[in-house]
Amino acid sequence: MPDIAREERPDVDDLELLLEEGDDASLRRFLMLLHPADLAFLLNRLDRDLWPRVVGNLDTAALSDVMEELPDDLRDDLAELLSHRQLADAFEQMASDDAADVIADLPPETAQAVLSALPEDDRREVEQLLEYPEDSAGGLMQLELVSVTESAAVHQAIEAIRQHAEEAGDLHFVYVVDDRQRLVGWLPLRRLILAGPERPVAEIMERDIHSVTPDVDQEHVADMFKRYDLISLPVVDEQGRLLGRIMHDDVVDVIEEEADEDIMRMAGAEEPELVYTNKIFRISAARLPWLFGNALGGLVSGSLLWRFRLAFPDKLTLLIFIPVIAAMGGNVGTQSSTIVVRGYATGRVDFTNLGRVLLKEITIGLFMGVLCGLAIGLFARFWKADPVLGVTVGLAMAAAMTISTLMGVVVPSFFRMVRIDPALASGPLVTTANDIIGISTYYLVASIIVGS
Amino acid sequence: MPDIAREERPDVDDLELLLEEGDDASLRRFLMLLHPADLAFLLNRLDRDLWPRVVGNLDTAALSDVMEELPDDLRDDLAELLSHRQLADAFEQMASDDAADVIADLPPETAQAVLSALPEDDRREVEQLLEYPEDSAGGLMQLELVSVTESAAVHQAIEAIRQHAEEAGDLHFVYVVDDRQRLVGWLPLRRLILAGPERPVAEIMERDIHSVTPDVDQEHVADMFKRYDLISLPVVDEQGRLLGRIMHDDVVDVIEEEADEDIMRMAGAEEPELVYTNKIFRISAARLPWLFGNALGGLVSGSLLWRFRLAFPDKLTLLIFIPVIAAMGGNVGTQSSTIVVRGYATGRVDFTNLGRVLLKEITIGLFMGVLCGLAIGLFARFWKADPVLGVTVGLAMAAAMTISTLMGVVVPSFFRMVRIDPALASGPLVTTANDIIGISTYYLVASIIVGS
Repeated sequence: MPDIAREERPDVDDLELLLEEGDDASLRRFLMLLHPADLAFLLNRLDRDLWPRVVGNLDTAALSDVMEELPDDLRDDLAELLSHRQLADAFEQMASDDAADVIADLPPETAQAVLSALPEDDRREVEQLLEYPEDSAGGLMQLELVSVTESAAVHQAIEAIRQHAEEAGDLHFVYVVDDRQRLVGWLPLRRLILAGPERPVAEIMERDIHSVTPDVDQEHVADMFKRYDLISLPVVDEQGRLLGRIMHDDVVDVIEEEADEDIMRMAGAEEPELVYTNKIFRISAARLPWLFGNALGGLVSGSLLWRFRLAFPDKLTLLIFIPVIAAMGGNVGTQSSTIVVRGYATGRVDFTNLGRVLLKEITIGLFMGVLCGLAIGLFARFWKADPVLGVTVGLAMAAAMTISTLMGVVVPSFFRMVRIDPALASGPLVTTANDIIGISTYYLVASIIVGS
Repeated sequence: MPDIAREERPDVDDLELLLEEGDDASLRRFLMLLHPADLAFLLNRLDRDLWPRVVGNLDTAALSDVMEELPDDLRDDLAELLSHRQLADAFEQMASDDAADVIADLPPETAQAVLSALPEDDRREVEQLLEYPEDSAGGLMQLELVSVTESAAVHQAIEAIRQHAEEAGDLHFVYVVDDRQRLVGWLPLRRLILAGPERPVAEIMERDIHSVTPDVDQEHVADMFKRYDLISLPVVDEQGRLLGRIMHDDVVDVIEEEADEDIMRMAGAEEPELVYTNKIFRISAARLPWLFGNALGGLVSGSLLWRFRLAFPDKLTLLIFIPVIAAMGGNVGTQSSTIVVRGYATGRVDFTNLGRVLLKEITIGLFMGVLCGLAIGLFARFWKADPVLGVTVGLAMAAAMTISTLMGVVVPSFFRMVRIDPALASGPLVTTANDIIGISTYYLVASIIVGS
């Protein structure tokens, strides 16, 4: 038994050494022992010049597996090393959903050529799946599954498994349909094992079954997997007829993807798939709009700062506290909006408990605002020995923080209502807006107290 | 067949109406049809005064199920409505890992009382699991599983399933051990169904098996599930002896939890479990340290601003551009650090490809810095008709953005090296540090150009 207790990623140096010094036979032995995910990991870190020799020593099954695991841009690099025939052979071995996903991401000409090289059946399957949006239940589902009609007996279900054993991959359930192909239940394999061969499946099947139609959004699919601890979810058409199934590992990818997207949006970076490639200009093009928006906000802050200088020439010490009030407003607003945005994403916040969340956040904002206002006000009072400055700074801080907290709940909720991704509300633009609100509040408070 | 095509959460109004107008029999019927996850969802939104009647109409199995689904604070509320006897009965029905998790989160006195009320066997199991840290493989594993020795025949494996069918819950594999209880392989149920009853399991088992020891961190466990598309992972001791198994749904929770943590840290909010409760003072206490750190940074920025005023009395227009340079440095730094932090979390960045990532980010930072510097420099030049101002602002912007990008890669990588969570490097404190770096850079550039 190998040391399985604490598995680590394989080392790219080992592969490089083997490529330098070893013969093809030992290279093939090394490659054969790798899990496709680990092979993809190594390819990602291996010099492109060394790829052809590795690829030349992989059989079709291994090529097919590693292709599913590679990120888009590397997959395109790999596809360039293969003939259309080799690509088509690799696709034939993939599950239908994986084949559709990979083909959708290939350069259009390659995709078209490969599709034509596929056998009729496979091509029709892939084309059917390609019609669903990638982020829908249809885009996630695979067509391979095992089903029996409710009138079948246990031994017939077992025979169905035997016939599909090869293609259906991970198999944990047999679905049960009526005579019009409508999904009516499911059979855990355990039940099949324990029941007598002549027992009708209708007697031992579970009737309580979750399913989705192909148009359902992948986020909703992921929610159902999380909520009901599923390992697969059948997809049915509007009439309830069984179309395919969604597997747990694809949903795990969706969950990661959605978290990625949220996080990137919050940072104003967008497109998680893109930012890890080497496409410097396209990455910059995705990041620059956020920066320009931010620059505009910064210029507004700057001109507000300038107005302070002109409006309160006798109290220029006010200027010193502009950054701290802006920063605190921005920060507390980001805290609240992040809590709300993530709450929406994970289902902990929705419109039915929004009122309570709003009330709670405002209470917290007010409490923290008063506390921070008191601290910074006293600090200003004694540092510059100026009671008016202290009161102005303290009040402005408390007000700015409370307002920003309120914005932190209201803006993402409004975005959600009008169907904009709430994650944008935790992004740099809203932070910038909160900065400006903070400075404006300060200006207003100063006008009232100092100006009077 | 119910409308299963597009499942939505149940409506709390329906439950309220039933509680107002219905009798206990119809209430029980309504509750019986709910998935435990949906019942937990309803309880979360139901007035606490109405809980006792709902709880009084749940049987032990339903109580046990809903308890697993509730967030910590609501679970404590529910526990208060139950006697220790009722609690112990509910725990007896849970899988060992769930029982341990729930008990670990109960108030200590309640936990102790419930533990003593459990049957000897169950208590020992739970106590064994409680010894592992919650975020380790041991903390995730359950003890319920089905295993056979490698000398067994298929019909013996089937008999083992029959004996454990009740307690082992979701069952997809039978594990195979040698005569010293060391894990040597696994059997997909499908193989058992298709093989003859007298066939030795050693002949049909899979020998290629992933496993972990109980001390392995939950993040590593989640990585393995994602990498190898697992639905369960056996846990073994240092000698390779089978201890338990980790199930896919618990790992999905871990993935969500880790994403939650990263996102909250990036916002300076911390403790995702806490921020959705109603504990206003504890939430404020968790958020305030970040705000105070931020306030300190803001005060440093403020005094730098003041130094500008004193150092360049003839060029006060420099002041206007302080916010925009600070904000852009902070923003571009957050973009880079988020890409790197999330890259570490998802395995797309590690120390083997850090050099390439660093080079790429700096190139992007320099490119975007020059672009933004040019834009803002020209803007300053023409707005204030001041070429020196334009050059100063443009150069400072380009420099600040490049440095911040560099920091965005270096700081999280340094954190990771010294084993601090890199997510902190995308948090408000580092953003504040980037603000200060931006203003300092500006000050330096201004000193050289304007001061000369």
